[in-house]
Formats: sequence, structure tokens, C-alpha cells
Amino acid sequence: MSQPRGPLSQLRRGHEELVLGLLRKHGPLSRGELGKRCGLSRTTLYDILAELVTSGAVVTATSQDAPRGRGRPAETLTLNPDAGQAIGIDFARRALHVAAVNLAHEVVGSASEPHDADLPWEQRVELAARLVGSLTGTGGGTGTGGGALRLGALDAIGVGVVGVVGSQAAEEDESAPHPAQVLLRERFGVPVLLDNNTRLAALGEAIWGAAAGGQDVLYLRLSHGVGGGLVVGGSLHRGAYGLSGEFGHITVEPGGAPCDCGGTGCLETVASIRAVLDAFRAAGGRAADVPELVKAVRAGDRAALTLLDGVGARIGEVLAALCNAIGPSVIVIGGELAETGGALVEPIERALHDHVMPVSRHRVSLRRATLGEVAGALGGIALVLHESPLLSRYPAGPDLAEDPIPDKESR
Amino acid sequence: MSQPRGPLSQLRRGHEELVLGLLRKHGPLSRGELGKRCGLSRTTLYDILAELVTSGAVVTATSQDAPRGRGRPAETLTLNPDAGQAIGIDFARRALHVAAVNLAHEVVGSASEPHDADLPWEQRVELAARLVGSLTGTGGGTGTGGGALRLGALDAIGVGVVGVVGSQAAEEDESAPHPAQVLLRERFGVPVLLDNNTRLAALGEAIWGAAAGGQDVLYLRLSHGVGGGLVVGGSLHRGAYGLSGEFGHITVEPGGAPCDCGGTGCLETVASIRAVLDAFRAAGGRAADVPELVKAVRAGDRAALTLLDGVGARIGEVLAALCNAIGPSVIVIGGELAETGGALVEPIERALHDHVMPVSRHRVSLRRATLGEVAGALGGIALVLHESPLLSRYPAGPDLAEDPIPDKESR
Repeated sequence: MSQPRGPLSQLRRGHEELVLGLLRKHGPLSRGELGKRCGLSRTTLYDILAELVTSGAVVTATSQDAPRGRGRPAETLTLNPDAGQAIGIDFARRALHVAAVNLAHEVVGSASEPHDADLPWEQRVELAARLVGSLTGTGGGTGTGGGALRLGALDAIGVGVVGVVGSQAAEEDESAPHPAQVLLRERFGVPVLLDNNTRLAALGEAIWGAAAGGQDVLYLRLSHGVGGGLVVGGSLHRGAYGLSGEFGHITVEPGGAPCDCGGTGCLETVASIRAVLDAFRAAGGRAADVPELVKAVRAGDRAALTLLDGVGARIGEVLAALCNAIGPSVIVIGGELAETGGALVEPIERALHDHVMPVSRHRVSLRRATLGEVAGALGGIALVLHESPLLSRYPAGPDLAEDPIPDKESR
Repeated sequence: MSQPRGPLSQLRRGHEELVLGLLRKHGPLSRGELGKRCGLSRTTLYDILAELVTSGAVVTATSQDAPRGRGRPAETLTLNPDAGQAIGIDFARRALHVAAVNLAHEVVGSASEPHDADLPWEQRVELAARLVGSLTGTGGGTGTGGGALRLGALDAIGVGVVGVVGSQAAEEDESAPHPAQVLLRERFGVPVLLDNNTRLAALGEAIWGAAAGGQDVLYLRLSHGVGGGLVVGGSLHRGAYGLSGEFGHITVEPGGAPCDCGGTGCLETVASIRAVLDAFRAAGGRAADVPELVKAVRAGDRAALTLLDGVGARIGEVLAALCNAIGPSVIVIGGELAETGGALVEPIERALHDHVMPVSRHRVSLRRATLGEVAGALGGIALVLHESPLLSRYPAGPDLAEDPIPDKESR
């Protein structure tokens, strides 16, 4: 049940969105009223309504205020407020994060749980099902049961994983499916859309977080690895081979330290958690982890401030180059190292200012991420919302005028 | 007449594309046959057909092979091979380039003419009309007249200009319209879509040139200025403020030579025509222009080869950083300096190989541009094809199956 992408399925998706948009705008409508407004033939409309009802996105009701004594009351159709929710799961290296939104795209809950890095996939998916159940009240996602959300109407699950994910985020990838995809599909019986979890965090921040509403967003994550993602024209950019957003492997010191990627002098060898902590200790500082580094920074530790000043400058130079090339309106800095605050962000901003084209200087805004560890799971939801017609952003503006395509036939 | 972008117009565009796609695939069809295949209501279909006929994209004909004696022969509809052509114009700094394609997206002609850099816009547009007339046989684009192409059915003109162009390439920009836009609209009476001409060259190369068919393409132009463009997911990427593709202003020498952009040490200060010729002369070489530099390279001039080796390395490092961030499948090198051939391209390739993430090394392909000076004009056409439903890429594949949405009503 992957989403087909041809022009015909796009047309059908367009029809579904039109119908859902009319129901959202006008509230309950009879089939006849819908037919008048949508311009589709009766058969096409009924066909689409049947699928929307089967999927649970639309429910039927007998109109309460039909005039008495004028035949049987007309059956009306309405959006199902409990349906169409989306689930996102981020399978990070050492923790699991889940989040859920309802049909109105309100985040109704999120949950996280740490685990060992070597936890087998079966147990990760078991843990995911438990966390999802805690959000939805289904106790494990069998598709039945009550609670705030009914998983029976779940359309798809968006999943973030560590590592390279191909450009096809659809279920049917050229390569073998990811174990998380196989196991979740078995468990929940719905399509599972997959992408790199750092890229998904970029999408999450662009929709619900620091860059909410931004159409062109660059997200940089400074964590155990250094990576990121690009939102381009409102959509997640994957790159030709699923290898975009690898900001951590841009060379900043030719001939510098060897990097896990096989290269040398990558930004990651300067700006990852380990690189920063190692450099801090080499400079005589003491910090076993990021919280201790943050403490040193707050205490005004000279070595820590000087170090972050240099690291920030390197990051800012890379960001300036990327700004010139890509032209984002917002840059979001996330990951644990962003917790060091202004000590890191200010030198980033200075170097960005110094190296970006002067004409762009005041057009790009640098912000710290706001979604924290749940960003990737929320990005997984965004993936579903973008990919699924039923959960897609409903058109609800002046574009959807009354009776846009007059159709005297269908009644 | 800018293209509306709401979901409803998208739906309508989808309907138009479906109808045009069926006509392209099946040849002449009667209204009844079209109705059976497209799944639209009779009224919607007739409405769309009326517009397609009015616009000239579709023409009616009386079927020749209708069986005799069975009532009047059915009127059939067919694509108009003379209609729907698109014109692209590149207003470069010192020359004008025009190109035209027909409905089948075949390039039917191109023309160029050099002029002074200070030629007023009125005279540039006059020159453009003359060149367009030479392609279409209309002698100036009044919309009448014969020739290989009929400008009467022209849907829009795509125009490339020098400098920053906002993210809205549609006619109605927030800022004041460009003089070329105003004058061309007066002259031809059709919408004029505008973008930066280097970005349009990127689009041209991605559709008709060195990266034909590429969905994710990075184009770098090494000319009097150094710039480029990105094609992302098959579409031209403009960036949040129309400032994408400014590869020439990425810092490669912190504290280096001042650049026209107001920065210092930009790639343009190392890799523009002037920078390269100046450096060649400083190294004792003799070349007044690029052709003379090319001659020196071909003669094995040591200073020229060493210089281009260093310049290529700088370019390759920048491209590697951008590859890691953006993940293109093809990089296209254009502009006059690309004429130096392997002497420049090989060091670019080496540096790219050395600095791109090892996992991406064999996935990105480096190519020289193939469209020459007409790339921008062709990109202008691509802009029109992408923006206009009538000239859009027609779906024509297995996706358009027979009778995709069975509709028993419309016959």
C-alpha cells in the first residue's frame, strides 16, 4: 500500500483533498450537496467517498435537522474528528521517541524512553508499540480500542532511523526494507514511511518548531555526530541518493583529523560532542559530558569559551557557504551542544555574518531548535502528513470558493 | 494572468494534464471517448475542453474514418502541433539569446546577437522581438502571421536577466516589475516569467543539456562572474529570497582579495575570467582573453596548467562541500573557462573526489555543459513549461492506464 506517484494517483489525491476540504469548510454535507460543490461525476465522487468512509477519515450520520415528513432524512457525511491521526517514531541510537497528532494536526502527545545501543529491532518495535499505546490508549496498536485516538483509522507511520536512507522514502525502496519498516508493518498493518531521523528533525522544526512555517530551512544538529537537513520549498530535500544534509562531513581542515566517514578534517572532527569535549580536556578543562561543559560555560570558564568561539567560527563559515548556495530564510541549530547557548551561537552568528554575501546578511535568521529530542518523531508525522492524502494539509482558503466548477449534472 | 496556485487550480491543472495526456497517448479522440477514459463529469470535461480549444492547445476535426451512413461523423479532438510553443529570452549583459520549442518540446530554433552593455531596455526588447520573429516567421511577434510557429497560441515567455530575482518568478512580484517584463508584456501581450539567467541555464542543462533528465543537478558557471543554480527534485530552486546558487561568493580564502559583492576571498576572486587571466599574467603568461588562455593550455604552457590546477582544486573543494550538503547526482560546469577542458576539470574532479564524503564519491557525476550560450534562453522556456498547465510536461506512461477511473455515467 505504498503511495503511488503517477499523475493519475495525484489526480485522485486531488479529488480526495477537494472532498475533505469541502467537508472541513462546510461541515456535514449530503452526497448531493457535495456533488454540487465538487464538480466530479457521481460515480467518481461515490467511489472516493466509499474509500474515505472505509479508511475512517469520513463518517456518515443521519441529519438531525431534516424537515419531518419529507421522506427519509438525508444521510450526511462529516470528517471523523478521532480519525486520521498520525504517528511518528524516532529510532535514535540509544533512545526511542514517539509522537502523535490528531486530524487537526494538533500534537496530542509524545513519549521517550532510553535503551541500550544494541537493543534488537524486535524489542525496539515492541517498545515503540508500548509507547504508542500509552499515547492512544490502545495498549499496543492492534487497531481497536478507545482512547483519545483510534489507531484503526491510522493511515501510516512515519519513522526516523539513523544512517543513510535512499531518496525513495516510500515503502517500496529499491534496497531491502529496513527492519523497523518490516516489523512495524506487521505490528500495525499500515504503510511505514522511513527517512533519516536527523533530516526528519529538520522537517519537524520547520513545521512545528523554531522555523515553523519556513519554506526554506537549514537545520544543523550538533550531537555525537554532526548532520542536518534541508527543507526546500516546504518539502524535505533528500538529494539524489538520500545523501543530503551531511554538513558534518564538509571539510573544514584540509589534512586534519581522520573522520568516521573515511575523510579527514570534516566539521564533525571539530564540532561533535566528542571532538569538543576532547579539545576542552586538552585545553585543561574538565567535563565528562555536555551538561558539565554547559556548567563550565556558565561559570565563565575561559578555556571553554575560547574553544566554543573557535568551534562556532568554523560552523559559521560552513553555514555561510551553504547560505550562499541554498538561500534559506532560517537556520536552526539543534543537538546537545546547542545547550551551550550564546557561547557557541554568537560566534556562529559572527562568522555567518562575515562570510555570507552581504546582500543576504539580514535576510537569514539563526535560531536555536525548540523541539528537543522529539523533533525526529514529529518529523516522521510530517512525512506522513505530506505523503498521505487523507492526512494531508486540507485546503481551506479563499481558493475553495463556492461551487468552483459549476456542474449542473451531478446532484 | 499569473498562474494561481491554490489547490483548486492545481486540481484543474491536473484535469487539463489528464486530458492532454490522453490526447497525446491515443491521438484524436471524440468527446465521448475522452469522457470514458478520464473519469470527469461531462460538464467538467466540456468546460476544460472549451478552454483548451480557445487557448489553441487542442483543435477539433471531423473524423475521416467514421463509418458512412451512421449519422453525422463524430467530431474528434487532437493536440495542435503548431500551438503551445514556448519562447525563452536571455538578456545577458552584452548579448541577447532567444530560443523556441514546439508543443512536442522540440527545440525548433535559437538565435543570438551581441550588443553593447549599455543598450537601453527598449532597444533590447526590440532586438528580442526581431530575433523571435526570425524563429517564428512573424516578423516581430504580433501574434498573427504564419511560419513554423504561431505566436497567437503563445502562452508565456520565459526570460532570464542578470542579477538577483526574487523567489516569486510569477509575473506579479512584490517588487517593481523588471523593465524587460513590462516591455515584453506590452509587445507580446502574454505573461512574462522572469528569473536569474544563470539559474535558468542550470534548468536548461538539467532538461536539454549535460544533465538531461537529472532531478538533482548543481550547475556552476565560470564566466566574468562565478555563479550557478540548483535543480532540486526536478524543479529550479530559488531560495527564500531568490539568492540561491551564489557559489561564486563562498569564501575560499579568508581575508583574501576583495570581491564585488562586498566580501573578501570569494571563489569569484579566484575563479572568474578576470581573476584567472590576471593570475596568468602575474605568473608571466600572456593571454588577453579566454581563447588565448585556451591556446596556451593546449600548447602545454606550464604556468597556465599550474594555475588552472590550483583554481580547479579550489572549485572542487567548494563543490565537495555542496555535494555533502545537497546531494546532487550531476554537477555541470559551464561558462567560458570550462573551454580550458581537462586542465581545469581534472583538478576539480580530484578535489571533489578527495573532499566529498567517501560514500558519495562514485554517485556524483561531473560533466561539462553542452548548451553553450543558449542555455539561459532554453531555461526560460523550461520556466514556462513548468509554470504553464498548457505547456506542462504531459504525463505519458504506464500510469495513464486505460479507463483508470471507471465511470459508467459519462459516455
